[in-house]
Amino acid sequence: MAHKFINEIEAGQTIDDIYMIKDPILRSTTRGDLYIAMYITDRTGQLNGRMWQATEAVYNALPKPGFVHMQGRSELYQNNLQIVLNHVAPVDAEKVALADFLAQTDKDTGEMFEGVKKIVARIKNPQLKALTDEFLADADLMEKFRTAPAAVKLHHNYLGGLLEHTLSVLRVAEAILPLYPNVQAGLVVAGIFLHDMGKTDELSYDMAFSYTDSGQLIGHIAKTLLMLHKKADALAEKGTNIDEAVMDALGHIILSHHGQYEFGSPKLPATAEAFMVNYIDDLDAKMSQVTNAVEKGQGSGNWTEWKNALQTRLYRKRIE
Amino acid sequence: MAHKFINEIEAGQTIDDIYMIKDPILRSTTRGDLYIAMYITDRTGQLNGRMWQATEAVYNALPKPGFVHMQGRSELYQNNLQIVLNHVAPVDAEKVALADFLAQTDKDTGEMFEGVKKIVARIKNPQLKALTDEFLADADLMEKFRTAPAAVKLHHNYLGGLLEHTLSVLRVAEAILPLYPNVQAGLVVAGIFLHDMGKTDELSYDMAFSYTDSGQLIGHIAKTLLMLHKKADALAEKGTNIDEAVMDALGHIILSHHGQYEFGSPKLPATAEAFMVNYIDDLDAKMSQVTNAVEKGQGSGNWTEWKNALQTRLYRKRIE
Amino acid sequence: MAHKFINEIEAGQTIDDIYMIKDPILRSTTRGDLYIAMYITDRTGQLNGRMWQATEAVYNALPKPGFVHMQGRSELYQNNLQIVLNHVAPVDAEKVALADFLAQTDKDTGEMFEGVKKIVARIKNPQLKALTDEFLADADLMEKFRTAPAAVKLHHNYLGGLLEHTLSVLRVAEAILPLYPNVQAGLVVAGIFLHDMGKTDELSYDMAFSYTDSGQLIGHIAKTLLMLHKKADALAEKGTNIDEAVMDALGHIILSHHGQYEFGSPKLPATAEAFMVNYIDDLDAKMSQVTNAVEKGQGSGNWTEWKNALQTRLYRKRIE
Amino acid sequence: MAHKFINEIEAGQTIDDIYMIKDPILRSTTRGDLYIAMYITDRTGQLNGRMWQATEAVYNALPKPGFVHMQGRSELYQNNLQIVLNHVAPVDAEKVALADFLAQTDKDTGEMFEGVKKIVARIKNPQLKALTDEFLADADLMEKFRTAPAAVKLHHNYLGGLLEHTLSVLRVAEAILPLYPNVQAGLVVAGIFLHDMGKTDELSYDMAFSYTDSGQLIGHIAKTLLMLHKKADALAEKGTNIDEAVMDALGHIILSHHGQYEFGSPKLPATAEAFMVNYIDDLDAKMSQVTNAVEKGQGSGNWTEWKNALQTRLYRKRIE
Amino acid sequence: MAHKFINEIEAGQTIDDIYMIKDPILRSTTRGDLYIAMYITDRTGQLNGRMWQATEAVYNALPKPGFVHMQGRSELYQNNLQIVLNHVAPVDAEKVALADFLAQTDKDTGEMFEGVKKIVARIKNPQLKALTDEFLADADLMEKFRTAPAAVKLHHNYLGGLLEHTLSVLRVAEAILPLYPNVQAGLVVAGIFLHDMGKTDELSYDMAFSYTDSGQLIGHIAKTLLMLHKKADALAEKGTNIDEAVMDALGHIILSHHGQYEFGSPKLPATAEAFMVNYIDDLDAKMSQVTNAVEKGQGSGNWTEWKNALQTRLYRKRIE
Amino acid sequence: MAHKFINEIEAGQTIDDIYMIKDPILRSTTRGDLYIAMYITDRTGQLNGRMWQATEAVYNALPKPGFVHMQGRSELYQNNLQIVLNHVAPVDAEKVALADFLAQTDKDTGEMFEGVKKIVARIKNPQLKALTDEFLADADLMEKFRTAPAAVKLHHNYLGGLLEHTLSVLRVAEAILPLYPNVQAGLVVAGIFLHDMGKTDELSYDMAFSYTDSGQLIGHIAKTLLMLHKKADALAEKGTNIDEAVMDALGHIILSHHGQYEFGSPKLPATAEAFMVNYIDDLDAKMSQVTNAVEKGQGSGNWTEWKNALQTRLYRKRIE
Repeated sequence: MAHKFINEIEAGQTIDDIYMIKDPILRSTTRGDLYIAMYITDRTGQLNGRMWQATEAVYNALPKPGFVHMQGRSELYQNNLQIVLNHVAPVDAEKVALADFLAQTDKDTGEMFEGVKKIVARIKNPQLKALTDEFLADADLMEKFRTAPAAVKLHHNYLGGLLEHTLSVLRVAEAILPLYPNVQAGLVVAGIFLHDMGKTDELSYDMAFSYTDSGQLIGHIAKTLLMLHKKADALAEKGTNIDEAVMDALGHIILSHHGQYEFGSPKLPATAEAFMVNYIDDLDAKMSQVTNAVEKGQGSGNWTEWKNALQTRLYRKRIE
Repeated sequence: MAHKFINEIEAGQTIDDIYMIKDPILRSTTRGDLYIAMYITDRTGQLNGRMWQATEAVYNALPKPGFVHMQGRSELYQNNLQIVLNHVAPVDAEKVALADFLAQTDKDTGEMFEGVKKIVARIKNPQLKALTDEFLADADLMEKFRTAPAAVKLHHNYLGGLLEHTLSVLRVAEAILPLYPNVQAGLVVAGIFLHDMGKTDELSYDMAFSYTDSGQLIGHIAKTLLMLHKKADALAEKGTNIDEAVMDALGHIILSHHGQYEFGSPKLPATAEAFMVNYIDDLDAKMSQVTNAVEKGQGSGNWTEWKNALQTRLYRKRIE
Repeated sequence: MAHKFINEIEAGQTIDDIYMIKDPILRSTTRGDLYIAMYITDRTGQLNGRMWQATEAVYNALPKPGFVHMQGRSELYQNNLQIVLNHVAPVDAEKVALADFLAQTDKDTGEMFEGVKKIVARIKNPQLKALTDEFLADADLMEKFRTAPAAVKLHHNYLGGLLEHTLSVLRVAEAILPLYPNVQAGLVVAGIFLHDMGKTDELSYDMAFSYTDSGQLIGHIAKTLLMLHKKADALAEKGTNIDEAVMDALGHIILSHHGQYEFGSPKLPATAEAFMVNYIDDLDAKMSQVTNAVEKGQGSGNWTEWKNALQTRLYRKRIE
Repeated sequence: MAHKFINEIEAGQTIDDIYMIKDPILRSTTRGDLYIAMYITDRTGQLNGRMWQATEAVYNALPKPGFVHMQGRSELYQNNLQIVLNHVAPVDAEKVALADFLAQTDKDTGEMFEGVKKIVARIKNPQLKALTDEFLADADLMEKFRTAPAAVKLHHNYLGGLLEHTLSVLRVAEAILPLYPNVQAGLVVAGIFLHDMGKTDELSYDMAFSYTDSGQLIGHIAKTLLMLHKKADALAEKGTNIDEAVMDALGHIILSHHGQYEFGSPKLPATAEAFMVNYIDDLDAKMSQVTNAVEKGQGSGNWTEWKNALQTRLYRKRIE
Repeated sequence: MAHKFINEIEAGQTIDDIYMIKDPILRSTTRGDLYIAMYITDRTGQLNGRMWQATEAVYNALPKPGFVHMQGRSELYQNNLQIVLNHVAPVDAEKVALADFLAQTDKDTGEMFEGVKKIVARIKNPQLKALTDEFLADADLMEKFRTAPAAVKLHHNYLGGLLEHTLSVLRVAEAILPLYPNVQAGLVVAGIFLHDMGKTDELSYDMAFSYTDSGQLIGHIAKTLLMLHKKADALAEKGTNIDEAVMDALGHIILSHHGQYEFGSPKLPATAEAFMVNYIDDLDAKMSQVTNAVEKGQGSGNWTEWKNALQTRLYRKRIE
Repeated sequence: MAHKFINEIEAGQTIDDIYMIKDPILRSTTRGDLYIAMYITDRTGQLNGRMWQATEAVYNALPKPGFVHMQGRSELYQNNLQIVLNHVAPVDAEKVALADFLAQTDKDTGEMFEGVKKIVARIKNPQLKALTDEFLADADLMEKFRTAPAAVKLHHNYLGGLLEHTLSVLRVAEAILPLYPNVQAGLVVAGIFLHDMGKTDELSYDMAFSYTDSGQLIGHIAKTLLMLHKKADALAEKGTNIDEAVMDALGHIILSHHGQYEFGSPKLPATAEAFMVNYIDDLDAKMSQVTNAVEKGQGSGNWTEWKNALQTRLYRKRIE
C-alpha cells in the first residue's frame, strides 16, 4: 500500500500508516489528565499530533525520534490540521521505505554510478588506477557513496546527492580537461572521485540529515585522507605499492579542495590539479544552489528570499 | 634586418639597431666631464648603457623613456655586459616592430578571433545578437581587442592576452553549458565576450604594460558597462531597441564578474549566468597563472618561488 | 476630508477611508466559510483586518499590495484592535495622497531645491557648469530628485530624503572648502550634486520603499555614471564637448564615494576631491542616523536599542 | 652665523658648523689603521662622513646619535659628496637651533595658538570651561602642545603639527556645527581640543620624531584620558567638582576618536559628539596626507607613488 | 523565613513573599477594566503575574523593575503557571537577600579572597607591593571586588565571579611561572590581581547584571588604568613615589590584556609579562565557558547547543 | 680535531676543515679565466669563497648545497673576510657532525626525553596508554622526535626543539590540570605528546631547516592524524582495539590544536581538552618567541626590532 503523504492528508480522514515522530512530550491538561504532544512528519511536511489519555508507559515506549505505525484521525483545530492518535507502535527503520521520509535525487542512482565508473575508468596512471579500483571494489563503501547526501543543508542535500554531485563535477572535468592540456587529467579525475568520499562517514542520513559525532570532530576532509591511506595500505599488503609522490599529490587535492582555510581546508591549493578540483567543485555546488533557489526558492516577484550562503537574493526573471 | 635581441649580445660586438631606453640620467665624472647613464632594453632583457662626453643638449633630446636608433659597442665592465654608445637618434614608436619590445601571445591572433566569432555566432536571442554584432562591427575596437593584454601583471599579460583569455573562457563555457541546461547560454556567451572589453581602454600597451589615467580612475568594469550602453544607444538610433531587462541582465554580469567586492565588483553575482561567468573567468585566469608559474617560474627543486596572488609556492613535480 | 490615521483609530469607530492593504490571504473557518485576513496600513502604523463571508472573486480583485477604499468598523479582539470590513474597492495609486502612506521630509522641498541650485550655481569651471546645468534642465529627473528617498532603511529614508541629504552635504562642503584651499571646489560641488542621482532609478517609492529590479542588478553608483555619460553625449550633440579629464575626475568621485570596496565602491578615492566627498557624505549620513536614533529610537534609560549599522547602542543623555 | 644646510654643501668647501651625526662606527682599513664612518644630517638631507686616523677614545666620546660641532672639508668620492672630518666636539641639544634639524610647520605658532584659544573660549558649559581652562593654564603642557608633531610619519609630522592639526579640526567643527543643531557644540569643541593632547607625552621630538617608551606601552589615547582625570582632580582640590556625566561624555570622545578597534580605540563612538569628532579628525588627517602627497609626493606623470596608508596612488592632474 | 523559589511553586499555592517584578504594563480588558500584567522573577526562573481590578495609582507605585512583597495565589492558565496578585508593596533593595535574586558563586568568598591575598603577598618588588597593598587597603573597593560578577554574560557571570576568576588566573600563574624563569613574576601577579578591577565600576549588579552608563562609555580597561593612577597619586602624597617604568609596565598589562584590538585592547602585548597575562586570562575564561556549557548547557545527545562566542557546539561525551 | 667555526676565522689563516657550501656559481674573469664563487657556512655564520683557475669538471663535482672538505686560506678583500680555496672534496652528510652546522637545543636531549616519558607514563586510560606506548616503542620515530626542530623559523627552530617544546607544554599541563578537575587529564597529556609528531616528517633538517615536499603538500596536522591511525591499526593487529570514541577525541585535539582555521586547523576546538591543548601550546610557543626576542633580538634601546608574527616590537627593560 502506498504511503499517504503528509501533504495529501485532509481534515476528517482515517490515518493508518507509518510516519516519523519527533520531540514527543508528556503533558497534563488543566484537569490533570496526561496526554502526548508530538510532531508527525515525512518528507512532504509536518503536522501536530495529539494522543489523549496517554500513560507514562506509552510515552516511554515511543522512539524520540523514530518511526511508528499509527492509527487515528485528522481534524482541524484552530484552523490547523492535526492528527489525533488512538494507537502507536514503534517500527524498525529497516522496515521503512526511507525514500518516503528523506528527500532523494530524482535521477537514476544506478545510471549515475555507471557514469562515474566510466569516467574513472579512463585514468591511465597505474597507481591512480589501482587506488580508484580499490575504492570501487569496496561494495559497502560504494553502497554508501550511492546513498549519502552531499550536505546537510547547502547543496545536493538529498539521498544520492553525493553521487549526483560527484558525477556532475567529473563531467565538468571531462569537458574542460582537453582545454588545459598541461593539467594531469588522471590526477584530477581521481581527486574528484575521492574528494568528498569521507562524507559517507561524516553525515548521518538514516532518519534525518545530520552530522555523526565523528563527522563533527574529525570532518570529511580528514576522513577522506584516512580512507585513502587505508586503501593504499591494503594495496601494499597485496603487493602493490603506491609511491609517496602519488599519495601526496592526491592527498593534497583532498586537503585543499575547499580552497580556503576558513572553509576548513588545512592546505591551500598548490598544484594545477588542486586548483582545478577546487574551482569546479565550487562551481558545481554553486550552480546547484543557485538553480535550485531560482526554481524552488521562496520570495516575491522576480527575486528569491535572501540566501545567506550566497550573500544575495537571486533574480529569477529570464530574458531568453 | 632582423633585430639583434638583448639576450643575444656578447662582449665586443658592434651595435647598430633600435632599442628602448629607460631612465637616462646626466652625470658628471670626478673630473667634471658629463656622461649619460641609461638602461637599454627590448623584450628579452636589459643592459646598462653609457654615453661618454655627453652634452645637455644630447641629454634633452633623448626620450624618457622611448625608442632610439643607437650605434656603439658592447663591452664587459666588472664582469657585466654594458653598451658604450657613440650616437643615438630618437625613433617614432610607429616605425618600431612593437613585438620586439613587448611580450606577445604565441598563438595566432587571427585564428583566435575567428574562434571567438564562431562561438558568439551561436547566440540566438535577437537582442543579444544585435548587441554583440554591434561590437564585432566596430573595427577600431576589435583591433584593440585583438592586441590588448589581459592584465599588467597577473595573467595573460602579453599582447593578444585579452583575446586569448576571452576565447579560453568562451571555450570552457561552450564545454560545460550543456551540463547546466537551465542556464541561459546566450547570456553567458555574450557576457564572456564583453566582460573585459573595457581593458582595451583601461590598459596602455604602446611601450610597456601600464594603466591609463582613465583606467585607474574609472576601471575596466565601469568602462565596459559604458561601452555596452553606447552600443545600445547606437542600435536605438538605428531602430533596434534593447529591452531594459536585457541591458540589466548583461550589465549585471559585467558588474559582478569579479565575484567579490574586494576585487572591485560593485555588485555580487545574483543570477545563475553571473555566477557561471564569475567562476569560469576566475578558473581560466588561475589555470593560466598556475601553469605559467609551473612552467616558467623560478624557485628551487620541486617548488616555484612564492606567488603572492595565489598565497602559496607551486609544486611542479609531475606524477603522470 | 482628512485621512483618518491608523494611530488615531479607537475601538468602536466606523471606518470609511483609503488605506493600503498588504498580504491578503483567503482562509476558511472551521465551519468551512471563507474569509480574508490582511494587514491595513498607512504611514502611522498597521492593524489586522478581517473580511467575513468573502468570496474568491472578492479576494482576486484585491491588490496585493495596494490601495483600497474600505468601509467597516474597528473593534477589540483579544485586546488588540482590528478592523472588520464590509466593503473594499481598489483605488488607483495616482488618486492617493502618497504622503499619507509614506514617510516624508518635514522640510520644504521647494526651498531645499533652491538651496541646491544656489550652491551648484557657484561652480566656475565651464564644463562642470554645462554638465550640472544639463541635469538641472532635465525636469523629469529633477522631479524624481526632489521626491526620492535617500535609502530604503539606513538614513534619510523618506520622501524628499535624497534632496535633503544632498543639500546637507553641499552645505557642509560650502562651509569647509575655504579651509582646504587646494581642493578644487567646483569639482567637489558637482560631485556631491550628482553622487546619489542614480538612486532616483535604483529605488522604488510609489507604495513602499524598495529596490527596483534594475536597482538591485546594477546599483545607483553605476547608474549615476551612466546618467553622467548620457548628459555628456547630449551636450556633445549640441556642440559642447566635455574633456575626458573632466569626465574621469567626476566619474571617479561617483565610483569611489562609498570609500571602501565592501560598501560597493568599485574604486577607492584617489584624489583630494574624492576623499572629501566620501568623508562628508558619510559624515552627514551618520549624523542623520545618530541624531534620529537618539531622538526617536527605542531602548531603555539613557541608551537606545542596539544599532547594527553603527555597531553600538547610542547614549542619549545630554550634559549641556 | 646661519647654519650651512646639507643640501647647500658643494664639493671642495670648508665645513665648520653644527650637525647631527648618526650611527658612527669604528672600522679598520686593510692596513690596520682605525677610522670612523658616520652619517651627517640636518633637516635638509644626509651625507656620509669619514674621520681618518681615529682612536677609540675619539669614537667613544661621540654621541650616538647627537649633535657635534665639526670642522672638515667636503669632497667627491665615487661621484658622491662626503665630508672628511678633522675635528668633532659634542654639543648640547639645548644649544642647538632645533628648527635646523627637525621639520616644522610653516605657519605661525603663536597665531595658531590664539586661534585655538578663541574657539575654545566659546564653550559655554561651565564644567567643560573649567576643564579646558585648567589645561590652558598649564604652561608647560601648552608649550609642548605648541611644539609637538601630530605623528611620527602619517600626517602633520613636523614641529607644531599637533597644534596645526588641532586648530584645523576645530575650524571644521566651527564651520559645520551650525548645520547640526542637535549636537552639543561645547562638548565637541572640548573633545577636539583635548583629543590628541597625550601625544605631547607619547612622542619624542628632541632629535628625531619617535615614540617614547611610555608612548609605545600606554599610547596617547589612554594618556589623554589620564591627563583629563588629573586636571579634574586638581579642580576638585580647588573646590570645582566635575560631574561624572561630563567626565564620561568627554572621556568617551577621547577613547573612541579613532573610530575603530583596529585603530586602537578601545570604545566605538556612541554619541553624536563622538561620531562628529571621529569623522572630522579623520577628514582633516586624510586631507593633509592627500594634499601633501599631491604637492610633494614622488611618482611619475599624473600619479604619485603608492601610498600604503591610503591604499592607492594619488592622481594630481587638476581640471580647474 | 526562607524564600519560596520560583522553581518550587506549584499550582494552587498561597504566595506571600518578596520577588522582583519586571516590565509591568497597565492594560484594559475588553470590558474596559484595568489590570496589570508583569513578570515575577528570582534567580531560579520567571512567571507571568496578573493583578486584576488595578488602578493607575497602584501601577505608578510599582518599581519598574524592582523588588516587591506580594500576596496572592498561583494557578494554571492555558497549561502555564501564573500568579494572581491581591496585594503588592515595594521593598528596598537593601532589605532583600540579593543572593535569592542573582546567581552567585558556589565557592566561599572569604576563602577565595584569602587565596588572592596569599598569592599577592609573594610580590617582592617594593613598588609593586606598595601599589597592591594600596588596593587591598581600600575596603570599599575590596568589598566590590568580592561581590562583582566577571561579566554580564560570557563567563563567571555571577556574584563573586570576578573574585573567582581572578583567583583562578592567579593560581594558573603561580603554577606555571616556575617554568618560565625569565618572566618577572611579581609583575605578572600584580597585573592579574588588577587586570579586571575596573569591572567593579563597569558592571551594575544590584538587581540584574548590566553595564553602568560609565561602564559602556569608558569600559573596564580604561577604568582600571585610572584606578591604578589614583592609587599611585595617593601613595605619592604619602611619600611613596612609583617609578614611571613601573606604572608603564603594569599599565601596559592592563591595556593589552584582551590581546587583540577587536576585543577592546588599545595596545597589543609587547612584554613577556603582558603575553602571559593575556593568555592565561583567556585560557581561564574559556575553560570556564566550556566546562560550564558541557555541564549545564542545553542541546541534544552528545552535543550542546551552538555557542556563538566559541563558534562551535561542544562535545560532552567523556572517554575516561 | 675540533671544527674551526666561521666566527673564529681571522685573516691570514690556513683553512683545512669541513664546511657547507651554498650557491656555487661558475664565472669568468674579464680575461676569460674561469673561477667559482660560493658561500661557505656553518652554524656560526657565512663567508664568501673563491676558487680561482677552476674548471667545469670541478664545478660539476660540487654539491649544491652540501658539505665539502676544503683547503685554502682566509684573506681580507675590500674589508671583508673571504676564503680562497685550493682544494675541495665533497663529504657525505653522514660523516659530518651535524651540530656544527645546525642550531641545536642547549638542553640535554636524553633528560628531556625522560621528562616526556615520565609525564606520559601517568596516563591511566588503558587505550590512551596503549596508543602512547605504541609511539614510544617506535625507536626510529622517537629518534626523529628527539632530533627534529619545532619549526623552520618561528619558535624552537633548532635541533631538539620539537622535544623541548613538547616537554614544556606537557609541564604546563601537569601544573594546571589540578586546577581544572573536570578536564580529562590523560586525554590532554596524550594530545600534547602527539600534537606535533607529524613535524618529524613535515620538516627536513639534514643540512638546513626546511619543509619536505610531503610536508608542504600534506602538513604536520594531517600527518599526525595518519600516524595515529597507523598505530591504532598496528595495535588492532596485535588484538588491542581502540574505540572510535577515543580515536575521535584524540584526533580532534590534533586537528584543532592550531585553534583557528586561518592557522591551518581544519576543525575548531569543541572539547575542554582541545581548548586546553590549543591554549597552552600557543602560550608556550609565544613565551619562547618573546623571551628569545627579548634576550637575543636586535633593535635599539629598550625595544627589539619589529616582530611580524607578534605584530609588535618587544620591550626589554626589566623593572624587577
